[in-house]
Amino acid sequence: MLFQRFEAKGLAHYSYLVGDGNQAVVIDPQRDCDVYVDTAAREGLAITHILETHRNEDYVIGSVELASQTGAQVLHSAHDELDYGYGGRIAEGEVLRVGRLRLEPLHTPGHTLGHMGYLLRDPSGWPWVVFTGDALFAGDVGRCDFYGPDRLEEMAGLLYDSIFNKLLPLGDGVILAPAHGSGSACGTAIAERPWTTIGLERKHNARLQHADKASFVAHVARMLEYPPYFRMMEKLNLEGAPLLSSILPPKPLSAHEFAAEAVHARVLDTRMELAFTAAHVPGALSIWHVGVPGWAGWFVPYDKPLLLVSEGNDPWPIVRDLRRLGYDHITGFLSGGMLAWHTAGLRSESIATVTVQRLCGLLDEGMEPWILDVRSEDEVRHTPIPGAHHIHLSHVQERMSEVPQDQPVYIFCGSGLRSTVAASLLKRGGWQNLTVVLGGLEGWNSVSCPLP
Amino acid sequence: MLFQRFEAKGLAHYSYLVGDGNQAVVIDPQRDCDVYVDTAAREGLAITHILETHRNEDYVIGSVELASQTGAQVLHSAHDELDYGYGGRIAEGEVLRVGRLRLEPLHTPGHTLGHMGYLLRDPSGWPWVVFTGDALFAGDVGRCDFYGPDRLEEMAGLLYDSIFNKLLPLGDGVILAPAHGSGSACGTAIAERPWTTIGLERKHNARLQHADKASFVAHVARMLEYPPYFRMMEKLNLEGAPLLSSILPPKPLSAHEFAAEAVHARVLDTRMELAFTAAHVPGALSIWHVGVPGWAGWFVPYDKPLLLVSEGNDPWPIVRDLRRLGYDHITGFLSGGMLAWHTAGLRSESIATVTVQRLCGLLDEGMEPWILDVRSEDEVRHTPIPGAHHIHLSHVQERMSEVPQDQPVYIFCGSGLRSTVAASLLKRGGWQNLTVVLGGLEGWNSVSCPLP
Amino acid sequence: MLFQRFEAKGLAHYSYLVGDGNQAVVIDPQRDCDVYVDTAAREGLAITHILETHRNEDYVIGSVELASQTGAQVLHSAHDELDYGYGGRIAEGEVLRVGRLRLEPLHTPGHTLGHMGYLLRDPSGWPWVVFTGDALFAGDVGRCDFYGPDRLEEMAGLLYDSIFNKLLPLGDGVILAPAHGSGSACGTAIAERPWTTIGLERKHNARLQHADKASFVAHVARMLEYPPYFRMMEKLNLEGAPLLSSILPPKPLSAHEFAAEAVHARVLDTRMELAFTAAHVPGALSIWHVGVPGWAGWFVPYDKPLLLVSEGNDPWPIVRDLRRLGYDHITGFLSGGMLAWHTAGLRSESIATVTVQRLCGLLDEGMEPWILDVRSEDEVRHTPIPGAHHIHLSHVQERMSEVPQDQPVYIFCGSGLRSTVAASLLKRGGWQNLTVVLGGLEGWNSVSCPLP
Amino acid sequence: MLFQRFEAKGLAHYSYLVGDGNQAVVIDPQRDCDVYVDTAAREGLAITHILETHRNEDYVIGSVELASQTGAQVLHSAHDELDYGYGGRIAEGEVLRVGRLRLEPLHTPGHTLGHMGYLLRDPSGWPWVVFTGDALFAGDVGRCDFYGPDRLEEMAGLLYDSIFNKLLPLGDGVILAPAHGSGSACGTAIAERPWTTIGLERKHNARLQHADKASFVAHVARMLEYPPYFRMMEKLNLEGAPLLSSILPPKPLSAHEFAAEAVHARVLDTRMELAFTAAHVPGALSIWHVGVPGWAGWFVPYDKPLLLVSEGNDPWPIVRDLRRLGYDHITGFLSGGMLAWHTAGLRSESIATVTVQRLCGLLDEGMEPWILDVRSEDEVRHTPIPGAHHIHLSHVQERMSEVPQDQPVYIFCGSGLRSTVAASLLKRGGWQNLTVVLGGLEGWNSVSCPLP
Repeated sequence: MLFQRFEAKGLAHYSYLVGDGNQAVVIDPQRDCDVYVDTAAREGLAITHILETHRNEDYVIGSVELASQTGAQVLHSAHDELDYGYGGRIAEGEVLRVGRLRLEPLHTPGHTLGHMGYLLRDPSGWPWVVFTGDALFAGDVGRCDFYGPDRLEEMAGLLYDSIFNKLLPLGDGVILAPAHGSGSACGTAIAERPWTTIGLERKHNARLQHADKASFVAHVARMLEYPPYFRMMEKLNLEGAPLLSSILPPKPLSAHEFAAEAVHARVLDTRMELAFTAAHVPGALSIWHVGVPGWAGWFVPYDKPLLLVSEGNDPWPIVRDLRRLGYDHITGFLSGGMLAWHTAGLRSESIATVTVQRLCGLLDEGMEPWILDVRSEDEVRHTPIPGAHHIHLSHVQERMSEVPQDQPVYIFCGSGLRSTVAASLLKRGGWQNLTVVLGGLEGWNSVSCPLP
Repeated sequence: MLFQRFEAKGLAHYSYLVGDGNQAVVIDPQRDCDVYVDTAAREGLAITHILETHRNEDYVIGSVELASQTGAQVLHSAHDELDYGYGGRIAEGEVLRVGRLRLEPLHTPGHTLGHMGYLLRDPSGWPWVVFTGDALFAGDVGRCDFYGPDRLEEMAGLLYDSIFNKLLPLGDGVILAPAHGSGSACGTAIAERPWTTIGLERKHNARLQHADKASFVAHVARMLEYPPYFRMMEKLNLEGAPLLSSILPPKPLSAHEFAAEAVHARVLDTRMELAFTAAHVPGALSIWHVGVPGWAGWFVPYDKPLLLVSEGNDPWPIVRDLRRLGYDHITGFLSGGMLAWHTAGLRSESIATVTVQRLCGLLDEGMEPWILDVRSEDEVRHTPIPGAHHIHLSHVQERMSEVPQDQPVYIFCGSGLRSTVAASLLKRGGWQNLTVVLGGLEGWNSVSCPLP
Repeated sequence: MLFQRFEAKGLAHYSYLVGDGNQAVVIDPQRDCDVYVDTAAREGLAITHILETHRNEDYVIGSVELASQTGAQVLHSAHDELDYGYGGRIAEGEVLRVGRLRLEPLHTPGHTLGHMGYLLRDPSGWPWVVFTGDALFAGDVGRCDFYGPDRLEEMAGLLYDSIFNKLLPLGDGVILAPAHGSGSACGTAIAERPWTTIGLERKHNARLQHADKASFVAHVARMLEYPPYFRMMEKLNLEGAPLLSSILPPKPLSAHEFAAEAVHARVLDTRMELAFTAAHVPGALSIWHVGVPGWAGWFVPYDKPLLLVSEGNDPWPIVRDLRRLGYDHITGFLSGGMLAWHTAGLRSESIATVTVQRLCGLLDEGMEPWILDVRSEDEVRHTPIPGAHHIHLSHVQERMSEVPQDQPVYIFCGSGLRSTVAASLLKRGGWQNLTVVLGGLEGWNSVSCPLP
Repeated sequence: MLFQRFEAKGLAHYSYLVGDGNQAVVIDPQRDCDVYVDTAAREGLAITHILETHRNEDYVIGSVELASQTGAQVLHSAHDELDYGYGGRIAEGEVLRVGRLRLEPLHTPGHTLGHMGYLLRDPSGWPWVVFTGDALFAGDVGRCDFYGPDRLEEMAGLLYDSIFNKLLPLGDGVILAPAHGSGSACGTAIAERPWTTIGLERKHNARLQHADKASFVAHVARMLEYPPYFRMMEKLNLEGAPLLSSILPPKPLSAHEFAAEAVHARVLDTRMELAFTAAHVPGALSIWHVGVPGWAGWFVPYDKPLLLVSEGNDPWPIVRDLRRLGYDHITGFLSGGMLAWHTAGLRSESIATVTVQRLCGLLDEGMEPWILDVRSEDEVRHTPIPGAHHIHLSHVQERMSEVPQDQPVYIFCGSGLRSTVAASLLKRGGWQNLTVVLGGLEGWNSVSCPLP
């Protein structure tokens, strides 16, 4: 018997491989799906079915890719109104047998209308694990706002019924297997605990403490941020994404080749904040490598070739992360990194940084900086920066004009990473007098210096 | 936050790495402990403490090894009567903080007197995971017979209290993290489900359905098999096992070198049943590679050098498995395998095999074979073989004399693997007329042929 | 600067990656070409050209595959008469620059009419390495018989000119980089030394000791064995082989599924000789795993699905080896191996084996066996077996009728491996009374027992 | 037959594994010697002997380590005057057989008095490969200055005899297998070609064009740089280095722990030039990761604990490189890198950088910078910087006082990497007004801007 979880780090996306006897099923596969094929083969299991809990909007699902490598059948929810370009349907009431195990579909609408959970029964027939997709997470529930503000309460009500009437009654001891963990764009409050149970959620999930329907609906019926790349994910997941074998890997480019291609491409620099601010290709967008899965979808367009700058000559982890977001047109990377750029005599740009000690000194000296805080609403609410102007990083691009060009702008986030992303956006927009605060608010709070 | 389980396959031994902030703790480490060091370093965590739930008897614990590589402190139960040669003590009531997490010792005697569980609380202080060592498994409870028949009921009573009064009250939603999974020598009924919860065990663990103390004690107070290697494990785990760096790896030996060394050594052949029966070094013990962790401790002595025969030139997985059982004196392996043996013109021996079809034919023809069934009591009870003589594989060595030398002996197990182990023991003891039934009882039951 | 050789083991095929600056070239790539892409990217090199020394006939060249992953241009010999379905042409006299290095084509006909060598000059312009394809190997020269007996002498003469007038004059110190090493089907006498030079070959290559043209031609103008798969290789290499991404990997099959598919497929069993002879799927062809690249092309048809049996559940190395020979229709493998077959109660077959000691005893007792020697002409010439009937393994299939069905046949090769291949062919042809001699002639010669 | 070269990158140290039959020999092993043990075991070879060409001074030889893992015998030159703490002796005239191969010691003094080459003969007895240690490299010869200026000419004369009378006569076709490749501290002119031959060297090695003894001696008898760590290498290689298993790996340290330990330790920061100059732990030494093997020995003391800062949490490649230089007291690394440092609110320092475009502009504006050129003599001779003050990086530490503190200092090297090392040394020495020129002279020469 095999029950294995796979995590697409950064996306905090969980997928599952369940097998018994000679057969296996994958639930919500990631696009780079060798992991399932290899694991299953090593265990002597043939992957026969691929289950999607719902049409995902935050990553490219690997169903078509995995089906092409295994011949497995993709099954979508029969309760869904969507017109998929691939796969079949499965409805609550049917049973999928995997060796001695049983997978029972549970129609659990709320996040989407057709959303499906799957109850896994062990060989004795007992409820053991429930795959909850984007209905119920550790510490959070799925968002209900995809059908717009008009249907917000309706969807929240459906979600209440799904959770309180279908999932929680399975019993406190049942293990929860959601589609996302902490860090995902699909929940604002997903808890860090990597494994959880119905019982832990019933007791400790803050959303579920609103146990009557009206209170729950009032609590969760909120319109949330909608990153621009979601639209592309929906399209790809509905039609079926291109096979990875049809996509050319990025080429190593010399500095001069890179500079020539950069004219009609976007440049994404995935080095850390210090290296980027010190020097970067003019016009480059900064997203530190770990932040790529979470932030690329906000700022990287789909209609231009993409060029990469990283430390070293190993762009593959970034390429994999970007392909999970449907960026298939990554044409090159800077061979030899910024060192090659500089030894080629090409012009680079820099952005100022300041340590919290130095900033403290400047404030003491009477400087009156314009402070831009790019943290999230929740962070700001929790620890506000007095006098700061708040624009969440996700909105910096469209609200740029609120930032002054004629006075020093000091950019704060939690650590200095998101500040650098914001600085790269502003710099590209023409802003010059930008300073990233190293260590961000966490660093600031570690020293004893009052903000103005 | 990091919560990761590591499985020593074959032993079905589970260990755990728990980390937060900059710090990590390992619970019941395996002897080859690079996995913890590497994982922790990659996450930027310093391993500061090593917790043992109890003095293990079925494998060599890696505490001394891991401490030597990290400087971490080993902590044994303060409720234990044992005189350890290394490490310190921790008692119920104390708390071990790991970043924002808390580990709370729970004195849970029954398997041993000092047995310790550990409750892991999440950053909010809620009970999240409980490490139950050998007190409570999926589908089973720890054995209570290590202090002998006189104290059997006392220990079973302690175990009842530990489980029913300390562990179950933690709540159905708490995740169970035991020291063993299905396949371990530490439980006869451990369920296959690789993850479980207090709730699932409370409901479905057959042992726990005996919910009053007297009934529970009556049910679990049984003397079980005690493999000879347990004695060595106890000694090594009490004194602290030698560091792996002090042990020479086995040498690749030519066939003639191997033959010369074999005179004063034991030969262990880890190939599959077909290859072994076809030809093997005279006197070799057969244990198919996957069976080594479970069976080597029964048959391989500690006081002789050990030589290995395998397919190919990669003895390392077997060496690792054997070192987990304290076999540190593995002096060589047969370079080039049996092919090298035969091309060197050295003499090999073989053991007859029979397919179930052929055996069926022989029975039809009136042959009256002496059938040796080496399966376990439970298997025999469940599907007996009429007319067979039953000696569990673990007892074949001392009960050899019950097997006749003057008539054909057909050996059955479930599949043919354990039969081959038994055949190798008998062959070495001088028995000649041995036949392994390929496919074993499972194969037999798949064809329609009545046993005599 | 990068100069790296890659070996496709078993095929003993060498390919080369040469890079400098930002650019790299691959010479005669293998079909599974990730190794070049990964290595080049790690070094920051873009693969811009793929050179073929000639239309290969012993493996599927990876040019089309590699071009599809890199956009590199494939270059064939401009001196070739072949009508390739892909790529461009390059002629002697042109120069390919790779950073500071230069690759100079050398038209070196003899093995084929268009055969091309490539001289690599170092940054100072000195001759450094010469890629000789199938013109000149360590210890051997390329075969000249592909255009038939009528043109044998013509081709041998061309080869003489290529070697003596173009390659040797490059200087003794130049490093030789041929397309094959010891063990290849492309030379009968390739020396074991994995690296060699013009100087070593000039002095020690036995073929080159025939230093006048007439003597050389007389010596090398021989018709050699032509394995049936060569025809398919030629076709694939002319047209361009299918992309690997278009091929389904084999499925893990349960024993019953395997048995059902085997009815209309060929079964290839890659276990070692002992395991195969002990029990195998009826009708299976035996080729021990290391022997697959060398022998599959002789016996495995292209027009049937192929099923695999191996030790364990890891068929990938075999699948890779088979795909290098163009076997793209491998539909499944036996999940769980022969153990699964037997526990499913399915019928297996076996072939007798004998140790040399036992055979010696039988001869002493007066047995008069029919001995089949399946070694090569060269081996037989060097150490003949008195009284044996010689049929080289490559001809066993078509000369089966020479083997008697009515008396015991003992099969000899060097070690017992090829004997088992031969036995599996004969068994499939209906022969019953077959015995494989374990250890083969090497084993026999290690004991003191006279052959009859 | 096995002939495999292993490269310790950065050190450009080559070692060799030669095997045949069942036996193998290693020549000049690196300290982290798993590679030999694993490769040999996989091939079924027992390593029986370890040969040292000479007492190395530029890296810790792995002989003691490898002997401890294999039981192999270490053999030093019998012609050596040194009093080794381990191993035996071998003299010219003796023969070491490895299966069918022969290794013949060649006493080849010059680099050291006892220096030994080894001629490898193939199974036919022909000279095939010659291991030349530090006597003869691709493009260079070994240095002769280790016995001081008084014996310089004597040693150079010995080297002449070794090369011209023992090595070159082996024949142009013999493959050269030296102890170092391009980039090693053991030769100032080692050519890039990774493989070479006697013939290529005889023709193209500039040193060997001085073919009469007097001319050769005059040419090579030069006192060269002697890095301070050589003394430690000599000691360790004479006594035998500590076993790696006796050394604790570095601990992941939180920023505050790191800061506390840094008080009595040296900090080595291995990030690239941009990240280091942007912000670093006060007092840290910069050596970019690839430069560690070549530069650490100049600047890192042996008598202090060493702390590491790198990108990410993977210090192992650097730890391995440092251990190869005998740095065994690496006590910790900064978990989470500089981001953790800044979020902990700790103070960092920075160093100014300038692009060549900006510097050009400053010069246009009339700035008169003090330019420090830290390139090697050879580089400076080849492309001098007018007006620059030259101090090779290796001497910056002792010649610091030549650098002014009261005016802007612009530091040039080839690319900006060594400039950053120099800047970190000066900064630690109290210099403040330092600017690293990004891209260095290579970048400068790529733009059209005249130096003052």
